[in-house]
Amino acid sequence: MTIDLNCDMGESFGRYTLGSDEELMPYLSSINLACGFHAGDPMVIQQTVQTAVKYNLAVGAHPGYPDLQGFGRRKIEMSPEEVEAMVLYQIGALWGFLRSARIEMTHVKPHGALYNQAAQEVRLANAIARSVRRFSKELILVGLAGSALIEAGLECGLNVANEGFVERGYQADGRLVPRGMEGAVIHDLIIAARQAIQLAMDGITVHKGEMAMNVKIDTLCIHGDSPNALEIVRAVRSALEEAGYKIQRLSG
Amino acid sequence: MTIDLNCDMGESFGRYTLGSDEELMPYLSSINLACGFHAGDPMVIQQTVQTAVKYNLAVGAHPGYPDLQGFGRRKIEMSPEEVEAMVLYQIGALWGFLRSARIEMTHVKPHGALYNQAAQEVRLANAIARSVRRFSKELILVGLAGSALIEAGLECGLNVANEGFVERGYQADGRLVPRGMEGAVIHDLIIAARQAIQLAMDGITVHKGEMAMNVKIDTLCIHGDSPNALEIVRAVRSALEEAGYKIQRLSG
Amino acid sequence: MTIDLNCDMGESFGRYTLGSDEELMPYLSSINLACGFHAGDPMVIQQTVQTAVKYNLAVGAHPGYPDLQGFGRRKIEMSPEEVEAMVLYQIGALWGFLRSARIEMTHVKPHGALYNQAAQEVRLANAIARSVRRFSKELILVGLAGSALIEAGLECGLNVANEGFVERGYQADGRLVPRGMEGAVIHDLIIAARQAIQLAMDGITVHKGEMAMNVKIDTLCIHGDSPNALEIVRAVRSALEEAGYKIQRLSG
Amino acid sequence: MTIDLNCDMGESFGRYTLGSDEELMPYLSSINLACGFHAGDPMVIQQTVQTAVKYNLAVGAHPGYPDLQGFGRRKIEMSPEEVEAMVLYQIGALWGFLRSARIEMTHVKPHGALYNQAAQEVRLANAIARSVRRFSKELILVGLAGSALIEAGLECGLNVANEGFVERGYQADGRLVPRGMEGAVIHDLIIAARQAIQLAMDGITVHKGEMAMNVKIDTLCIHGDSPNALEIVRAVRSALEEAGYKIQRLSG
Repeated sequence: MTIDLNCDMGESFGRYTLGSDEELMPYLSSINLACGFHAGDPMVIQQTVQTAVKYNLAVGAHPGYPDLQGFGRRKIEMSPEEVEAMVLYQIGALWGFLRSARIEMTHVKPHGALYNQAAQEVRLANAIARSVRRFSKELILVGLAGSALIEAGLECGLNVANEGFVERGYQADGRLVPRGMEGAVIHDLIIAARQAIQLAMDGITVHKGEMAMNVKIDTLCIHGDSPNALEIVRAVRSALEEAGYKIQRLSG
Repeated sequence: MTIDLNCDMGESFGRYTLGSDEELMPYLSSINLACGFHAGDPMVIQQTVQTAVKYNLAVGAHPGYPDLQGFGRRKIEMSPEEVEAMVLYQIGALWGFLRSARIEMTHVKPHGALYNQAAQEVRLANAIARSVRRFSKELILVGLAGSALIEAGLECGLNVANEGFVERGYQADGRLVPRGMEGAVIHDLIIAARQAIQLAMDGITVHKGEMAMNVKIDTLCIHGDSPNALEIVRAVRSALEEAGYKIQRLSG
Repeated sequence: MTIDLNCDMGESFGRYTLGSDEELMPYLSSINLACGFHAGDPMVIQQTVQTAVKYNLAVGAHPGYPDLQGFGRRKIEMSPEEVEAMVLYQIGALWGFLRSARIEMTHVKPHGALYNQAAQEVRLANAIARSVRRFSKELILVGLAGSALIEAGLECGLNVANEGFVERGYQADGRLVPRGMEGAVIHDLIIAARQAIQLAMDGITVHKGEMAMNVKIDTLCIHGDSPNALEIVRAVRSALEEAGYKIQRLSG
Repeated sequence: MTIDLNCDMGESFGRYTLGSDEELMPYLSSINLACGFHAGDPMVIQQTVQTAVKYNLAVGAHPGYPDLQGFGRRKIEMSPEEVEAMVLYQIGALWGFLRSARIEMTHVKPHGALYNQAAQEVRLANAIARSVRRFSKELILVGLAGSALIEAGLECGLNVANEGFVERGYQADGRLVPRGMEGAVIHDLIIAARQAIQLAMDGITVHKGEMAMNVKIDTLCIHGDSPNALEIVRAVRSALEEAGYKIQRLSG
C-alpha cells in the first residue's frame, strides 16, 4: 500500500514570498513546480529545484494561465492550440533546470483554472495531454480523479495519476466544491487527515450522467499556502503511515 | 570553405507581426529563435519551428531580457545569477518545441542588449556561458567575434562560433557601431554583400588594449526586420556562393 | 443630420506597429485610444494624443483586458470589482496625457472581449458604467447599440452613445456575428458604405426575448487595422456626406 | 516645527501581500502609492486609497520601472522620453482612484532604481519633473534631499520636498548607502529614532564637488516592509513629537 503526497510549490515571485516550501518538503514525496506564468520566476524555480533535490522529491511541472495577478485562478478564453503551445513552453522551461540538476521530470499537473477546466472540458483536456505527450511519453499526467483530463491522458497513451485533495470539499458527483463557496476548503487537521485516509482507502466515486464509478486515488494533494500547512501535512502523513501506507512518489 | 548564414526569427507576438520569416528561410542555414521574453510567444515559437523544419534549418535559442516593450534592447540591471537562471529558462522553453519536432537545438545566441553586454562584461558573459553549459555541453555558444562571450564559452568548455554582421557598421576595435549612431546600420545591398565576403575571407581584427588579433568568422548574421531584408539576404548569399563559399550550418 | 465616425487607435506596442493611425485621422471625428493593457504603451499613447490634437479629434479611452498577447480579445474571468478597478485605472492613465495636452476626454468605450461581454452581461456592464461614472459624469459611455452596456450607462446617469459597425456583420437580433465565424467581417467597400448609410438612417433593430426595438445609431466604428482601412474610411465618409450627414464628434 | 512622515504603500500584488499598510497608517501623515508597474494593481490601489482616506492621509503617486519581478529596483535603460511618458501614465492611473474618492493627489515620488537615478542623473531627473509638471503644477515633487531631482523640480517651477530616510545609512556626501552594502539599512529602533530627530533638526549636508550645503528635511520616509516596521514608525513618531515636532502633511 503506497500513495504519493504532493504539494504545489515555487509560487513565490520576485520580492513576493508565498508558502514555506522547505518546511513542508520533508513530509512529501513529490512537488508540482510553478513555471513562471501564474507564479514563480527563473530564480524561484532554480531555488526550488535545488531544495527538492536535497529532499529527494519527485518534481513535476505545474503549468498555468499567463496571469500573475490572478494567480492562474481566472479562466482565460484560449483556444486548445494556444493552451497546447503554452503548456509545452512551460514544461520545457522547467525541464532545463531539472536537466541541469540531473534529475528527471516525473509528471505534469495543470494549475488552478486550467486544472479545473481540464477536469471537465474535453478539448482543453486533450490539448494538455497532447502537449505532455509531445514532450515525453514518460511523463505522468496528474489530474482530478476520474476527470476528463485523466481520460485524455489515457487516450494519448500516457501514464496518468488520479489525484485527491485532503483539504478541499467534494461535491456528490466527485467534483471539488468551487473556491469561494462554503465548504470549499477544509481547515481542520482531523478532518483533513480523515479525508486523506478515506481517499487512500476507498478512492472516490465519480458520477457521469447516470453512471457512477469508483476511482482509486494515486496521489494526494496538500496546499502549501494555508496558514497551518505544516500542521496539516504532518497530520496527514502520520495518519496515512499509521493506516499502513508508505508515502512514495508516482511511478510510470 | 563553408560559412553559416543566420537570422533572428520568431519575433512576432500575438497579433503583432514582425519580419517575413518564411520568405528568408530558403537562403539561410540557421535561425536564432526568440523565446518569449523580448519577443515571440508559444504560438509563434511553434509556428517558426515548424517552418524551420520545412527548410531544414539549424535552430538555436535567442534569449533576451524580459522586456517586450523595449524589444530586449534596453539593458536591465540584473545580477549574473538572475541572468543565468533567465537564460536557462528560455533555452528550456524553446527546447520543448524542438524535442517535440524531433530536431536538436544547435546553438544559443543572446539577443539585443544582452548580446552587447555579454560582448564586453565578463561576469555577464560567464553567467550566459554557464547557463548554456548547464543545459548541454553540445550547444554552440554564438557571440560577437573575439568578444568576452566567446572567451567565456571557451573557458566553460563549450564550442563557440564567432559572429559577424553583414549590415552593421564596425568600429576600429572590432566592436559594432551602437544602434542610433551614424553608420550603425548598412542599408545598401552592394555594401552588405561586400562586407559579407570580407568578413568571410579576412575575419575581423579585434583590439584589446594594445593587442590586436585576427578572428575568423564562423557565422554571418542578417537582420530579418529591415524593409529590404529579402534582397539583402539574396545578395549576400549569391555573393558568398560566387566567392566559393558553401552556406552550411554550424557544427560542434 | 450628424453622426460620429470613430476608430480604435494607438494599438501599436513598443517595436510593433499596428494600423496607420495618422492616415485615417482626417476622415474621422473621434478615436478610441488603447490604454496599455491589451495594446499601446505610454509612448504610443503620447504620440497618438499629439496626432489626434493635430486633427482636432475627440479622444476617448479604450480600456481592455490585461492581455497583450491575446490583444484583449480573450475573455478573462474577472470579478465585476476587478473590472471596475481595471477600467478606472486605464481611464486615468490616458487622462494624464489628455490633461497634459489640454484636451478633454470625451468618451469611454471598452475593447474587444470586454466590449462584447459588456453588451450582454449585466453585472459586467454595470461595473464598467460605475467605473466611468466614478471618474466623471461628463464622460459619454459608448457601447453596442441597444446593449446591456447602454442600459447600464443610462441607469448610472451617464450620457451614452449607441454604436454601429460598418464592417462587421450583424445577426438577426442586433448582435454582431462573432469574429472567426463566416460573415463576421465585411471587406468590400461598397457593402461597408451601404451598411454605414443604412445604420445612420434606419438605426438597428435589437431583439430582447419577444421584444424588438429600433435603436438610433450615434456613432459608427471603422476598424483601422484592416489592409484596406484607408479606402473603407474614405468610402464610408463620402457615402455619409453624400447622404447628407455631417461627420461630427459626440456631445453629451 | 512640523515635519511630514511618509511611507511607501500599496505594494501588494494579486495574491501576494507585502507590508501591513493599515497598521502603520495611524502614525503617518502621507503615503506614496505604488502605481502597478513595480508593485500594486488596480484592486490594491483602490483598497489602499480607501484606507488612506479613512486615516486622512495625504496620498502621492509612487511611479517605478515596469519590473514587477525586480520590484522596480533594477535600473532599466530607458530614454528620458520613455521615462517621461511612463511616469505621466502612472500618475494618471492613480489619479483616477483619488478623483473617484474625492481627494487631491499631493505629491509624486519616484520609486527604487528610478528614485536613485533621478537623484544623480540630470536628464532623467528633468524627465520626471517635466512629467509631474505636465500633469499639474500643484503637485509637490519629492526627492532625495539636495539631489538632482530636487533641482529639476525647482527649475520646472514645481514645489519640492527634500526627503530623508530614518532607516537608511548615509554616505559622507549625503547620498544613501546602496542596498546590498553594509550599513545600507538600519534595523535598530533607537538608532532610527535618533536619525529621525537629527534629520529633522539639522537637515543633511550634501556635497557637490568642492561645495557643501546644508539641506532642510521636509519629509521623513519610513519603510513599511521591514519586519519591525510598526515598532520603528511608533518609535520615530514618538521621538519626533517629544522633540517638539508636529507630524503634518506637506503643503505646496
